[in-house]
Amino acid sequence: MEVITTVQEMQQKANALRAAGRTIALVPTMGFLHEGHLELMRAGKQNADNLVISIFVNPTQFGPGEDLDRYPRDTPGDLQKARDVGVDIVFLPSAPEMYPAGFQTRVQVQHLPQHLCGLSRPGHFDGVATVVTKLFNITKPHIAVFGQKDYQQLAVISRMVMDLDMDVQIIGVPIVREPDGLAMSSRNSYLSPEERRSALCLKKSIDLAHRMFQHGERRADSILEAVRTLVEDHPFTNIDYVALCDPVTLDNLKILKQENLLALAVRVGNTRLIDNSILREGSNP
Amino acid sequence: MEVITTVQEMQQKANALRAAGRTIALVPTMGFLHEGHLELMRAGKQNADNLVISIFVNPTQFGPGEDLDRYPRDTPGDLQKARDVGVDIVFLPSAPEMYPAGFQTRVQVQHLPQHLCGLSRPGHFDGVATVVTKLFNITKPHIAVFGQKDYQQLAVISRMVMDLDMDVQIIGVPIVREPDGLAMSSRNSYLSPEERRSALCLKKSIDLAHRMFQHGERRADSILEAVRTLVEDHPFTNIDYVALCDPVTLDNLKILKQENLLALAVRVGNTRLIDNSILREGSNP
Repeated sequence: MEVITTVQEMQQKANALRAAGRTIALVPTMGFLHEGHLELMRAGKQNADNLVISIFVNPTQFGPGEDLDRYPRDTPGDLQKARDVGVDIVFLPSAPEMYPAGFQTRVQVQHLPQHLCGLSRPGHFDGVATVVTKLFNITKPHIAVFGQKDYQQLAVISRMVMDLDMDVQIIGVPIVREPDGLAMSSRNSYLSPEERRSALCLKKSIDLAHRMFQHGERRADSILEAVRTLVEDHPFTNIDYVALCDPVTLDNLKILKQENLLALAVRVGNTRLIDNSILREGSNP
Repeated sequence: MEVITTVQEMQQKANALRAAGRTIALVPTMGFLHEGHLELMRAGKQNADNLVISIFVNPTQFGPGEDLDRYPRDTPGDLQKARDVGVDIVFLPSAPEMYPAGFQTRVQVQHLPQHLCGLSRPGHFDGVATVVTKLFNITKPHIAVFGQKDYQQLAVISRMVMDLDMDVQIIGVPIVREPDGLAMSSRNSYLSPEERRSALCLKKSIDLAHRMFQHGERRADSILEAVRTLVEDHPFTNIDYVALCDPVTLDNLKILKQENLLALAVRVGNTRLIDNSILREGSNP
């Protein structure tokens, strides 16, 4: 496994792979890899000749007062996990390598971020779209793999790829959960044991919403209220948002349709957790 | 010479060329080709195996009330000129092919557009940066050629390429002028014979500035006033801006340095013309 830290070397490597007729899969990560990331990597390996992952805690997608400074890091452990799963190249740049002096360009998807996480994290998706554009230009992937846990991120990136004619196939991989249902996230490491128990309210409320939907409930308000009540019954919780929306436009729904996105963001103690699920007619959670 | 009108076909063609080890030069144009464009194409041919030009009057870089509707077009003449100069592929998309329903992404260079043309054409450089990003992703060039007549555009694109790690070499080609000195522009076709004579004030004022600089004048105000007076002495003229600025940051200068950009935009009748030149110690205009 190769570890590359400069843009120039990574581009040369990607060009050489492409010139040799090899296909490239990219899995962008912020490190502190868990089983969810490893699933993305396995999907990447299955769909391309060479698997590149990036590990970069991107400062421009954190807002003031967010957890950039304490975001968990474990580069040696990450490299070991990447090697075990069969990664070919780890792109591991420094912040100055990615954002040299005078940097002043952003890629902005204009409407999709005006929903859900974008409302409480202004500028977040500009940072995501910009760094993903850079990572695509640096690693030159044929396919790129993202988790469905960050549903809105996947929607924003898919839109950007379409709008800017990026010749990259985007693959979304289902959420990976702990045995008790908590969606895997690097931020789970912030949780105290008590908070960790409360954090189950996200998955429990998703299950509740599925049961209501399967029993015929189609009024968004009714499901949202049940979800809010369930979350608020758990200690240390503070709801950022709970929403039922169109899975493509992310516009809020009043009456549910065939396919609906339930998305929620909940602070548990100081840790902001997100989760989501598609409520789909004729399917189980 | 091939004419390609869809994004998908152009990407397939570019992929095939690259897979065959061929290098690609792109010259993006808005058509109504003149000798200035042909110089860009010759530079492209000299620096790559295959020359692609795009012809697309990009609506997103025109503001309300600008000349999008009357921008001159001559596709048959353009194709003949392209063939004569040895273009391999003309990419000629429709507006809906470039901006399908739901389009919502922009690429924005943040500081450089806050000068010169960007001040009187808000959003113009967002439109330019976005369409050039798309054209790069569609035609996959190794090099791209732009005219120095649009100096600020060249600066914005160069910054964007650096910031977003686009693996494209940008080449700037000097201004091509009519025998009497007027910089070539598709918009010159708007000028009446009387306006055409007045339009010479741009080049004349550049020559005047060079003489003053060579005689030791280093106060920007003094040169700018002389330029303004010369332009205003010509009928039908209305100055948008005259500026002396740093060639890299585009910040205005009070005292000139070794290298200085003189840039001007002047309305002659209803036609907005631009021109520029570098005042450089130890060189002639």
